[in-house]
Amino acid sequence: MREFAYDVVCIGNAIVDVLAHADDAQVARLGLSKGVMTLIDAARAEELYAKMGPAVEVSGGCAGNTASGVAALGGRTAFIGKVRDDQLGAVFTHDLRAQGVTFATPPLEAGPPTARSFIFVTPDAHRTMNTYLGACVELGPEDIDAAIVGSTQMVYFEGYLWDPPRAKEAMRKAAKIVHAAGGRMAITLSDPFCVTRHRDEFLSLLGREVDIVFANEEEITSLYRCDFEEAIERVGAQVKVAALTRSEKGSVAVAGSRVVRMKAEPVAHVVDTTGAGDLYAAGFLHGLTQGHDLADCARLGGICAAEIISHIGARPEADLAELAAPALNQAR
Amino acid sequence: MREFAYDVVCIGNAIVDVLAHADDAQVARLGLSKGVMTLIDAARAEELYAKMGPAVEVSGGCAGNTASGVAALGGRTAFIGKVRDDQLGAVFTHDLRAQGVTFATPPLEAGPPTARSFIFVTPDAHRTMNTYLGACVELGPEDIDAAIVGSTQMVYFEGYLWDPPRAKEAMRKAAKIVHAAGGRMAITLSDPFCVTRHRDEFLSLLGREVDIVFANEEEITSLYRCDFEEAIERVGAQVKVAALTRSEKGSVAVAGSRVVRMKAEPVAHVVDTTGAGDLYAAGFLHGLTQGHDLADCARLGGICAAEIISHIGARPEADLAELAAPALNQAR
Repeated sequence: MREFAYDVVCIGNAIVDVLAHADDAQVARLGLSKGVMTLIDAARAEELYAKMGPAVEVSGGCAGNTASGVAALGGRTAFIGKVRDDQLGAVFTHDLRAQGVTFATPPLEAGPPTARSFIFVTPDAHRTMNTYLGACVELGPEDIDAAIVGSTQMVYFEGYLWDPPRAKEAMRKAAKIVHAAGGRMAITLSDPFCVTRHRDEFLSLLGREVDIVFANEEEITSLYRCDFEEAIERVGAQVKVAALTRSEKGSVAVAGSRVVRMKAEPVAHVVDTTGAGDLYAAGFLHGLTQGHDLADCARLGGICAAEIISHIGARPEADLAELAAPALNQAR
Repeated sequence: MREFAYDVVCIGNAIVDVLAHADDAQVARLGLSKGVMTLIDAARAEELYAKMGPAVEVSGGCAGNTASGVAALGGRTAFIGKVRDDQLGAVFTHDLRAQGVTFATPPLEAGPPTARSFIFVTPDAHRTMNTYLGACVELGPEDIDAAIVGSTQMVYFEGYLWDPPRAKEAMRKAAKIVHAAGGRMAITLSDPFCVTRHRDEFLSLLGREVDIVFANEEEITSLYRCDFEEAIERVGAQVKVAALTRSEKGSVAVAGSRVVRMKAEPVAHVVDTTGAGDLYAAGFLHGLTQGHDLADCARLGGICAAEIISHIGARPEADLAELAAPALNQAR
């Protein structure tokens, strides 16, 4: 078998999360769409920040969170995404590298600042995200490093990359390199509204550029415009593997006609659901790239998601490799 | 009685905390002095950050934390300190203002960046702080806004201000304005090593420029070079009020010959002791400026300290005014 330098390369928007507590009344007063990700411009970013409570800054971005999770599990991983050469860019870069993720995309030296997402966490642990993409809009095919992307088992990228103008070209370039090198491409559908914005393009990717799909129930049913059970069948026919998450109802892993239904891991106290899907993907991808079967991949995903929702922020705090060890040993 | 626009004005180093988990082995390997604050230069800051794990950014600085706590309790408060006009300066400024603290010190437009403290939190919940003062070294008498300082019941400042070159001049100017306006000056001794660096100057401040002193057991015994019981007597003779904290042993409040010993508030799980002293001061100062007696001030201090050590970061997350209400109502 071919030797790969990386297990998983994650590509996505490079974002620093700015997290604050808020109540439902404040979310309504600010005119925010609760529970979803809304793209905002620089002026709205300034306005929202001025009205937001005291906050905490934590590196985020879906694919960045996933890369961080894979590295915490012991996987060899790299991240591709665009920051500026500013203080928040330095924070984002530091946090990935400190977790053991290779991050070598050259930062912008002029233009918009590093992206940030203003996240309002309500007492029900849900997050309302307002993302200013900043430097991320400059990600393009020139940022796809063939030395990295051509030497990985798996590239995982965000559906959100269909929002900035040239990132989709970058993804098509990555798909060609990855497939030529014998690796696989995975997408996360990111968000139900992201699916609405890009449904036809996403549908045309599956089974062609993309081999593996991650989605939650709302995203996959929105993609196929049918109920969940029918969506399971359709996605199973279209891609090699699908991992479908259902919050407290656990997840469903699909490979062709094989369907595994996995319960959610118990969580004593849900604090902040930011990053649950990203860390589920980290666990699942780590399982896949380490050669585990579908059920163990889904179990690993659930373990990682449970860790991330038990604290504020979307990067792991506990030792994921240690948390995952019993599930992996059991599997051997 | 004279009407004051502010209850408490806090003056100190304006710092963004960069917090990461670490174990004792890493603290030793990096050559850090566990449990204390060490001043570092720009080169060492870069070196330490490169070796630090993934981190979280939270506004900090002792006096900034205290201002934030007083505001959370419902007190009218302002902060004076120096940031640069950079992204971390914007974060620091936002977090204070969002808490309701007036912060109007003009930021530096050139020169060193906003200060940051690299804080390694070990599993025993202790923090090892490494502070790069950056823009803070430029704080001087010109930053003492007479309109603010001349209209407050209380100015509270950090002993740490004796480290940068011109801040002590700023404090002497503040003391003159405050006393002329009928207000009081309070100091926190900040840190045992800070006491060692500036012992003679601190001793000469007490009872002259300074009316109220906050210290923990180690700091006050280092100041007077005697045991704790003797230090209680000596500080009682030198200042109007002293509040002496003893971690899990609670605190001792002293006013002349009156000595109140207060038990610590119970805490289910101590996560991070960063800011315990700062928030004790917030509660105590809020009690004093709202006219409560010594025992209630000490109780309020304990309640605020207990909240802050139950989570990561030194700014309050819970509703302090709500937590404090029972203690204050009981007192009426």
